[in-house]
Amino acid sequence: MIFKRYSRLFLKRHFRKSYCSQAASEWATCEPKVFSGIQPTGIPHLGNYVGAISNWLMLQNRYSGSMLLSIVDLHSITVPQQQQELRQNIINMTACLLGCGIHTSKTIIFQQSMVPYHTELAWILSCICTIPRIQKLAQWKEKQSKIKEPSVGLLTYPILQAADIMLYKSTLVPVGEDQTQHLELTRDLSRSFNRLHGVLFPECKILLGDVGRIKSLRNPTSKMSKSEPNDKSRIDLTDSPDVIKMKVKKAVTDFTSQISYDPDNRPGVSNLIDIHMALTDLSHDEVVEESFLQAEDTSLYKERLAEVIIEKLSPIRKEILRLQADKGYLLDVLRKGSEKASTIAENTIKDVRQYVGLR
Amino acid sequence: MIFKRYSRLFLKRHFRKSYCSQAASEWATCEPKVFSGIQPTGIPHLGNYVGAISNWLMLQNRYSGSMLLSIVDLHSITVPQQQQELRQNIINMTACLLGCGIHTSKTIIFQQSMVPYHTELAWILSCICTIPRIQKLAQWKEKQSKIKEPSVGLLTYPILQAADIMLYKSTLVPVGEDQTQHLELTRDLSRSFNRLHGVLFPECKILLGDVGRIKSLRNPTSKMSKSEPNDKSRIDLTDSPDVIKMKVKKAVTDFTSQISYDPDNRPGVSNLIDIHMALTDLSHDEVVEESFLQAEDTSLYKERLAEVIIEKLSPIRKEILRLQADKGYLLDVLRKGSEKASTIAENTIKDVRQYVGLR
Repeated sequence: MIFKRYSRLFLKRHFRKSYCSQAASEWATCEPKVFSGIQPTGIPHLGNYVGAISNWLMLQNRYSGSMLLSIVDLHSITVPQQQQELRQNIINMTACLLGCGIHTSKTIIFQQSMVPYHTELAWILSCICTIPRIQKLAQWKEKQSKIKEPSVGLLTYPILQAADIMLYKSTLVPVGEDQTQHLELTRDLSRSFNRLHGVLFPECKILLGDVGRIKSLRNPTSKMSKSEPNDKSRIDLTDSPDVIKMKVKKAVTDFTSQISYDPDNRPGVSNLIDIHMALTDLSHDEVVEESFLQAEDTSLYKERLAEVIIEKLSPIRKEILRLQADKGYLLDVLRKGSEKASTIAENTIKDVRQYVGLR
Repeated sequence: MIFKRYSRLFLKRHFRKSYCSQAASEWATCEPKVFSGIQPTGIPHLGNYVGAISNWLMLQNRYSGSMLLSIVDLHSITVPQQQQELRQNIINMTACLLGCGIHTSKTIIFQQSMVPYHTELAWILSCICTIPRIQKLAQWKEKQSKIKEPSVGLLTYPILQAADIMLYKSTLVPVGEDQTQHLELTRDLSRSFNRLHGVLFPECKILLGDVGRIKSLRNPTSKMSKSEPNDKSRIDLTDSPDVIKMKVKKAVTDFTSQISYDPDNRPGVSNLIDIHMALTDLSHDEVVEESFLQAEDTSLYKERLAEVIIEKLSPIRKEILRLQADKGYLLDVLRKGSEKASTIAENTIKDVRQYVGLR
């Protein structure tokens, strides 16, 4: 298993080595190619920013020109969507990614459904993936138990996810811990294809990110999530300074007024410190010490933290709002990105068709 | 349920009526469009010719310019295929269909995988098709019971089949009885899509053909099939006259030398009479009477039947062999047909994307 939890330190170490030592024997030209996807589910929140987007920003600098970021609209329809809302969410997600600093000169940002080969490869892979293999995935078991009549797409989407990754011969895939089983499936399917039809795909490496590190402001033992009904539980990237102040002020803490970092016994205030750390690169000791020196109680600390968040998010929010007003530009970004992605994907799918015997 | 077993008489009657009376209220421009598919599984046999191909020949005259015939290579990979063999089978099937009289001026003959939208629509449909709905299909139950670890494709291919049909807004689908459940699924998915996203698809009508009417020459209670190991059980369209004579001579009959039509008690000789009828348009009474007048025993009758088969198949065989020698032409037919099919399919998929909210 090639799982890595990535950090700046890890990346520095990692880059001294070849990426492809394991597969080098059978996989000659192995440029690192980073692939990640995000569902268009509305405006991302601070948890998304810290857990995923900020890592993509780091990776796009490291792998400038070799990173693909897909707005995976075909995945989002595995649950019911409203036409207008989905369309708007795709546009919004594009604005947010660009607003956060994803740059088209470094990253190919594209809309999954604009590249017609994702579903074609997914179909071909579904013919070499067994039912028991896909049914044993933990996410399926969990989803299946909650939905009376799940859709076929809800069972088979990890195969589409594998196709997303393999279509670009991706070698590095940053994901959260909940996705590692799906990435193992991708690696299995790469191996199966190579064994059955000839060596075409690298086995991607998994870069484990800290998705879920930031917790809900209302329930600090659960991760910050769009699915939590109370929107005071999260800070969206487009929240105004006043809204941010209000949400931080109302964040659940405890009856101790002093600031200390103790995630097990003081999850609320520790989550605030985690947010602080993530946005400033301070350690928790440094955050706690500064608070002590300034003789802050929880209330005063919250005020200071709100300012830190506002300072970080203000330029991002401003840029997102500016971009949202220019729909034509956003559509153009998606179109051009999808054209670039299609060029890479077309090369792969042509080989796939030939290897399988369809051409 | 709109099932029809089609015969010349049925077609004559049927054409006096509108095809779309049921859906007319919600489906304004309803030109009849015929869709059928065939897997590239090698040279078709006499059972395929009588059960499917001869009906397509009739339909392409009736619906000249409105019929699509797809070589469904993406379906064939739900079971393991050899690369070279699959490629050759696609070419061979093209030669056979053209050799039988399918004409590109009347029918759009195309290779499924050359139109990239089949799998895209299949994915979108898989998000509105429930697992219980697809698991209750009889073919799945049967296949599942025989295979230890069935592939995902083997479960989900009826959704791809639905996409094949819906992508061309097909209104008439000639199939064998074993496919009626799959066509009902197609009709269900058309209804579901229309209800969820807006009316886009007609509900296709099922034209029931006599697939399986011709039985195995070695085991005349089973249908003539490519999967039977003994190739004396079937007559392939490219069999030489000598091979045809030999296979008919060795056809299993019984110990009664007289010719009579009695499928239950004399399946062997009755199957021979069925073949005779299918190739000549004689009734079984006429076949039996002629045999009586000529005082034929089984052996003599077999000789006469072999001549009937040879007479029917000789020009077809000659044309298939001629076409097989011209691979460039066959590839060109597939390419041009797939371009025509793509034009229709692209119009549909553009609407689908819009209706769903992907554009």
